[in-house]
Amino acid sequence: MANVAFIGLGNMGGPMAVNLVKAGHSVSVFDLSEQAIQVVVSEGANKANSAQESVKDADFIVSMLPAGKHVKALYLGQDGLSEYIKTGALVIDSSTIDASSAKEVAQGLSEKGIDFIDAPVSGGVAGAAAGTLSFMVGGSSDSFERAKTVLNVMGKNLFHAGEHGAGQIAKVCNNMLLSVLMVGTSEALNLGIAHGLDPAVLSEIMSKSSGSNWTLDVYNPCPDVMENVPSSNDYQGGFMVDLMAKDLGLAMEAALESHSSTPMGALARSLYAVHAKDNGNKDFSSIFTLFNKD
Amino acid sequence: MANVAFIGLGNMGGPMAVNLVKAGHSVSVFDLSEQAIQVVVSEGANKANSAQESVKDADFIVSMLPAGKHVKALYLGQDGLSEYIKTGALVIDSSTIDASSAKEVAQGLSEKGIDFIDAPVSGGVAGAAAGTLSFMVGGSSDSFERAKTVLNVMGKNLFHAGEHGAGQIAKVCNNMLLSVLMVGTSEALNLGIAHGLDPAVLSEIMSKSSGSNWTLDVYNPCPDVMENVPSSNDYQGGFMVDLMAKDLGLAMEAALESHSSTPMGALARSLYAVHAKDNGNKDFSSIFTLFNKD
Amino acid sequence: MANVAFIGLGNMGGPMAVNLVKAGHSVSVFDLSEQAIQVVVSEGANKANSAQESVKDADFIVSMLPAGKHVKALYLGQDGLSEYIKTGALVIDSSTIDASSAKEVAQGLSEKGIDFIDAPVSGGVAGAAAGTLSFMVGGSSDSFERAKTVLNVMGKNLFHAGEHGAGQIAKVCNNMLLSVLMVGTSEALNLGIAHGLDPAVLSEIMSKSSGSNWTLDVYNPCPDVMENVPSSNDYQGGFMVDLMAKDLGLAMEAALESHSSTPMGALARSLYAVHAKDNGNKDFSSIFTLFNKD
Amino acid sequence: MANVAFIGLGNMGGPMAVNLVKAGHSVSVFDLSEQAIQVVVSEGANKANSAQESVKDADFIVSMLPAGKHVKALYLGQDGLSEYIKTGALVIDSSTIDASSAKEVAQGLSEKGIDFIDAPVSGGVAGAAAGTLSFMVGGSSDSFERAKTVLNVMGKNLFHAGEHGAGQIAKVCNNMLLSVLMVGTSEALNLGIAHGLDPAVLSEIMSKSSGSNWTLDVYNPCPDVMENVPSSNDYQGGFMVDLMAKDLGLAMEAALESHSSTPMGALARSLYAVHAKDNGNKDFSSIFTLFNKD
Repeated sequence: MANVAFIGLGNMGGPMAVNLVKAGHSVSVFDLSEQAIQVVVSEGANKANSAQESVKDADFIVSMLPAGKHVKALYLGQDGLSEYIKTGALVIDSSTIDASSAKEVAQGLSEKGIDFIDAPVSGGVAGAAAGTLSFMVGGSSDSFERAKTVLNVMGKNLFHAGEHGAGQIAKVCNNMLLSVLMVGTSEALNLGIAHGLDPAVLSEIMSKSSGSNWTLDVYNPCPDVMENVPSSNDYQGGFMVDLMAKDLGLAMEAALESHSSTPMGALARSLYAVHAKDNGNKDFSSIFTLFNKD
Repeated sequence: MANVAFIGLGNMGGPMAVNLVKAGHSVSVFDLSEQAIQVVVSEGANKANSAQESVKDADFIVSMLPAGKHVKALYLGQDGLSEYIKTGALVIDSSTIDASSAKEVAQGLSEKGIDFIDAPVSGGVAGAAAGTLSFMVGGSSDSFERAKTVLNVMGKNLFHAGEHGAGQIAKVCNNMLLSVLMVGTSEALNLGIAHGLDPAVLSEIMSKSSGSNWTLDVYNPCPDVMENVPSSNDYQGGFMVDLMAKDLGLAMEAALESHSSTPMGALARSLYAVHAKDNGNKDFSSIFTLFNKD
Repeated sequence: MANVAFIGLGNMGGPMAVNLVKAGHSVSVFDLSEQAIQVVVSEGANKANSAQESVKDADFIVSMLPAGKHVKALYLGQDGLSEYIKTGALVIDSSTIDASSAKEVAQGLSEKGIDFIDAPVSGGVAGAAAGTLSFMVGGSSDSFERAKTVLNVMGKNLFHAGEHGAGQIAKVCNNMLLSVLMVGTSEALNLGIAHGLDPAVLSEIMSKSSGSNWTLDVYNPCPDVMENVPSSNDYQGGFMVDLMAKDLGLAMEAALESHSSTPMGALARSLYAVHAKDNGNKDFSSIFTLFNKD
Repeated sequence: MANVAFIGLGNMGGPMAVNLVKAGHSVSVFDLSEQAIQVVVSEGANKANSAQESVKDADFIVSMLPAGKHVKALYLGQDGLSEYIKTGALVIDSSTIDASSAKEVAQGLSEKGIDFIDAPVSGGVAGAAAGTLSFMVGGSSDSFERAKTVLNVMGKNLFHAGEHGAGQIAKVCNNMLLSVLMVGTSEALNLGIAHGLDPAVLSEIMSKSSGSNWTLDVYNPCPDVMENVPSSNDYQGGFMVDLMAKDLGLAMEAALESHSSTPMGALARSLYAVHAKDNGNKDFSSIFTLFNKD
């Protein structure tokens, strides 16, 4: 088993770290919240008094932080971990951040002989707890292979997207597309409803036709068409509007950088920005209500 | 077996009528093109000299025409078929037209004791030939059940969408959603490509994640990711841009009628209207090239 | 002075008819509302007991109705006015309707030797009362010249847009553009506000720069930047969201008919359709609040 | 008269510097291009051998550079000008850059006792040569007043937008709005043309109505409606599509930073990104051709 450091023990990071502990790895953990540390320590992790201390003997360092600036500061900033991580170790950053920051950190660590992969996840809090996350990985094939020891414990689907930053790009491409599927499906269902169609019937028809897509098939945004989805539970749980808005922001940054045209992705971002004003904590399928006449 | 009249023997109607013949039905056919009639007659259909003549003994009348005005004229216009079809017969209009016209024809025929369903199809020319079309049906449950004798021969999936007009609405909802999936998928793939990702790898990742949708999974718009799709054949064959533009026009008419908000559907229509200028005869997945930098 | 019939005495039609009376014309009026008739009769108009009676001796017939179907029914329907209006008279339809209906009525009247212009207006209820409306006229140059006798009394700016239907097209082009100006201005002001700029200062800068446009310059949608505009009066008065939504519907019908691409016009329609759910009776500048973070 | 340093002598900066010389200021200039320096020196400017040398005695330092990273590097980077500019001098950055970079530079200079305003311009190359630019200024009122000595020579309209960064925000708000006006006007004109209207007649009508806006009134995008605008000269000259795309990128960065919803601005960016593929060097009014059917 491996020595693993885990930094960032929030809603996602906490259960991910616990799964590493349960698999038998020696896991040294750190977070700015003492309470967050205690939860993971109570499952068998070792408490570190600082991020610097946590990485001392680590073969793998996993981080799960809110934004690019935090990741850059952690590894390359003043008293950054690049000075503390041992040569040959592998850093796995599972934060969802901009690809430019991921590449910058990869470069900075490389100069110290430390390997890096960007490995953002999808699957949400439930996937983190169940160990069924998907990881989209950017980095060398060697690093990808090496990381499997750790990633297999936390996730089910491991994708090698390409070089450094490619994991982040794959994630924002997917989530931008997801937002378009959700808005498009919501428009189509509401157009049918406005003409008297039963949303369950229309959903089944489109799901078996060329309108088939993830949001229609397994995450229907219309209340009471499916059980056990957020739309049938007042849009509670699931993937928050504010998080989708964040990911769409990252997608737009990527589009600006490459001068790419993304009219639907950009429209989705503006619609979610309007919708977030009063619904930031609801599931992202609640965009359905923007088009509903009731 | 039944007496069937079939009116409108174009790219879709021709092979549909042939399938009825092959199944053993007695099929009387008419089209304004003598050549189109001959093709079907050579397969065993009976030639009628007029639409009026074709419906004389028919239990089922199937029509496949370009637009609502043609369907209204055929059944309710001067010397319209409502005066010729026998009481109790069932009219199956498989044209893709506006729901208002479908309802109007249903009403007009009803006054003569003739039943009606709107039954637009999806599946394209290949599906028409193979007898694997999907039918989206609007009308009474009784009519839907009765029509199966005929529809089962021409199609594989029969959906009862609701009352008169509901078949047309279901079709335009589905195709509006399809256009959004296609544009959104094209944007996402091109954003990834612009950042150096391999479109085949990115397609696989999104297809196994929440970006999964029909266009990505079985009809990939990026050349050379999939075999046997139009994008890998210079966007030849498939579902023409001009036809998608037509269906989006019908979707927008439906949205205007119900005062529905469909920002992505409307954007798709405008993008396809721009794209159609030079690409009307290409497959609709060619919208991919609008976002490609090459 | 001329014999004028005026049919349709609503918020707009009533004061327009009164201006004709005040100018000394002999005006015979009809409306389905007895009350509406009385208001105009009290100013000196002659009450007709039916639309048919009103047009008996008229040289000019002015109509102001809600939609194309009403105008078609009035002139060409059962017991329509085309049978009652005298040969050589000029029909001036000031309703805002679809161009196709206008052309159809023009054709139908022409067959009876009656001239027609479509002459929709802008300027609102205030302009109707003050006699300062703008008229956008479709029809022959002769008819346009002849109509001035009547139009000059009700309006200030008379535009000859082109042949029959061109008046309606000019109107929907203008109002579609107006909606885009309003949304674009609202976005720009709110973007500035979100970054700490004073909306009055930003308005002045853009108004004196290339961002100058009617909504920014004389109808500022941000509360308290200008006096005497709806935004500074809780968005009361002015041009209702529901009416803008109606005009955008007509613009989209025109775009569908000509297969024109209008991405921003279509987006404006969808945004106003969302906004109308709770704000149909407010002034159309209230779309500003959709983008405001407060 | 003042001692002025001018750094960045491109299409805009060159003629701006010449105007300072002509007004009698002592102007020390630097650019990476020796040729660019010679043009201005031949008009009476003093050549500096480095940016550092140019600012030695300067009371005012004007810079005109491509992007935020260049401005940050110039003033705050290695061997940056903040170490060379004398205390109490005023830096006027007329580059169009992101507001964050402007604020960062303002802060960095402030720590050395150097004042700063961001002062991006509008008016193009012609305005730079004629000394009729508009300046949108962010910074203190004192700095704004002080800068007038220099700005009045180069421009006609001086706007004080607010604190540091506000000049940049005002510029991107204006140009985002300008792009929306241009696209909306192009859509409206083409919709009219598709219905047979004369674009000159329709332009006049809308220009005198509520559709009035800068692009319609003085910069008509339809060829041959106005003389002396780029559309009547094959879209040569004017404000390049690539530059509009750049400014829209800055507007989107500002929108992302403040989580603002800008659906039309975002759509304009995507449309210009598509259009730029083959038309980057044309005037931005050439977006008209995207919607034209010819």
